[in-house]
Amino acid sequence: MRPAFHAEHTRDGVAEYDFALTVDGERVPAVIWTPAGAKGPRPLVLMGHGGSQHKKAPTLAERAQRYARDHGWATLSIDAFGHGERVSQEEAAATVADIHSRVRGGERSGPSNLFKTMGERVRRIVPEWRAALDAAQSMDFIGAGGPVAYWGMSMGLVCGVPFVAAEPRITCAVLGLGGIRTGDDAFGAAVRAITAPVLFVFQWDDVMATREGGLALFDALGSAEKTMHINPGGHTETPAFEQDACDAFFLRRLGGRAVG
Amino acid sequence: MRPAFHAEHTRDGVAEYDFALTVDGERVPAVIWTPAGAKGPRPLVLMGHGGSQHKKAPTLAERAQRYARDHGWATLSIDAFGHGERVSQEEAAATVADIHSRVRGGERSGPSNLFKTMGERVRRIVPEWRAALDAAQSMDFIGAGGPVAYWGMSMGLVCGVPFVAAEPRITCAVLGLGGIRTGDDAFGAAVRAITAPVLFVFQWDDVMATREGGLALFDALGSAEKTMHINPGGHTETPAFEQDACDAFFLRRLGGRAVG
Repeated sequence: MRPAFHAEHTRDGVAEYDFALTVDGERVPAVIWTPAGAKGPRPLVLMGHGGSQHKKAPTLAERAQRYARDHGWATLSIDAFGHGERVSQEEAAATVADIHSRVRGGERSGPSNLFKTMGERVRRIVPEWRAALDAAQSMDFIGAGGPVAYWGMSMGLVCGVPFVAAEPRITCAVLGLGGIRTGDDAFGAAVRAITAPVLFVFQWDDVMATREGGLALFDALGSAEKTMHINPGGHTETPAFEQDACDAFFLRRLGGRAVG
Repeated sequence: MRPAFHAEHTRDGVAEYDFALTVDGERVPAVIWTPAGAKGPRPLVLMGHGGSQHKKAPTLAERAQRYARDHGWATLSIDAFGHGERVSQEEAAATVADIHSRVRGGERSGPSNLFKTMGERVRRIVPEWRAALDAAQSMDFIGAGGPVAYWGMSMGLVCGVPFVAAEPRITCAVLGLGGIRTGDDAFGAAVRAITAPVLFVFQWDDVMATREGGLALFDALGSAEKTMHINPGGHTETPAFEQDACDAFFLRRLGGRAVG
């Protein structure tokens, strides 16, 4: 079903459409970026934001705008459960404080629900992404049957793995900044169930994911084509050139510039 | 000292110059590829061939020709000790048979000197590469002071590590298909002494290098900027897209198209 947009902006040649879905009783806010005036089918990138972020976090919005301008792709992003418009500003601020402390290897601060609600978030994410993907593919400037990529780092990996494993429309995925935790059998099974080509980006000195867990994730991926990129540094220190590597990976899989 | 070329060919816009140096009593045959009619300084790539290969092995020659055509770079390649013009055709054939068997995980065949002579080859490689680099930089179409990259897979890594560690003119290096063997302290020390940016390409199912040894090499590299790319498959199964990743890495470090 084609959703009604409740806001539409165009800036620097990129159109941004806001809409919302209702999935299992929850309102799921979403956004699609495309080249302004886009007509006809084109590749679609789904972006899963990180913990404490939201669907339009600046790094995500900039990436989506670049994809539209440079490659003609559409990008879809949704607020995950407990994030963005789905929490109060106070709860969102507490989550930011908690994740910033964890990323620096510090104490777990404040009353954050980030990890308490992870199970609920992961259970909801597959139907939410599927509903959002259905909605996006109902647009004539995206269409059904074209290539669909998933991109997600950190919590975007945690939520992305079960979705990419379950969704046959996914052509390829860039995942990063996570791993298989010892004993997390459901997550490990989802990693093994993935068959789409994967670029897996990992930081060698990340307090949020052990080296063993990261290597176990790469090893377990069921994809015949998979590549792991390892760089030194912490959770927020992925080198800028990995953005170029991600673009090159998507270009190989999604094809060049779309029409319109 | 500017060497005398004993052969010069130009094909499809790429010039190929053959010459030879004498280093520690050994004749060291070498080749330089550049764009035809090249004038003035340009980036230089040093290519270290693999075990049983030689300075003009087809994959190396094609890479050098592409660098000249696409980026205007010069490429220098030499026959390592026990390879190319430095052995008889019979010895070279025995080495090929041996390495093909090893790569497939099979028996070590024939009377190959490949591994018996590795120590001698590694001892000679630093002065040989230095003399060849001096000669190349004496050419007006290369010049001194410009960026210099090293590229070497497998035996090209084994021989390249001590050279890259010792030679301050090296701007960056792409190394691959090897690791630190337990107890090889001299090699480990050379890996730690490397400070130039490195792209390290590794195969996850390589009978020629253990996973632990490959990860230990990445971990030990002294370079502040280092990236490891891991792909599934064996020693000869590096995906074609890693060639693009190598080009992107070199382009970031060596700069774009040279003049002439």
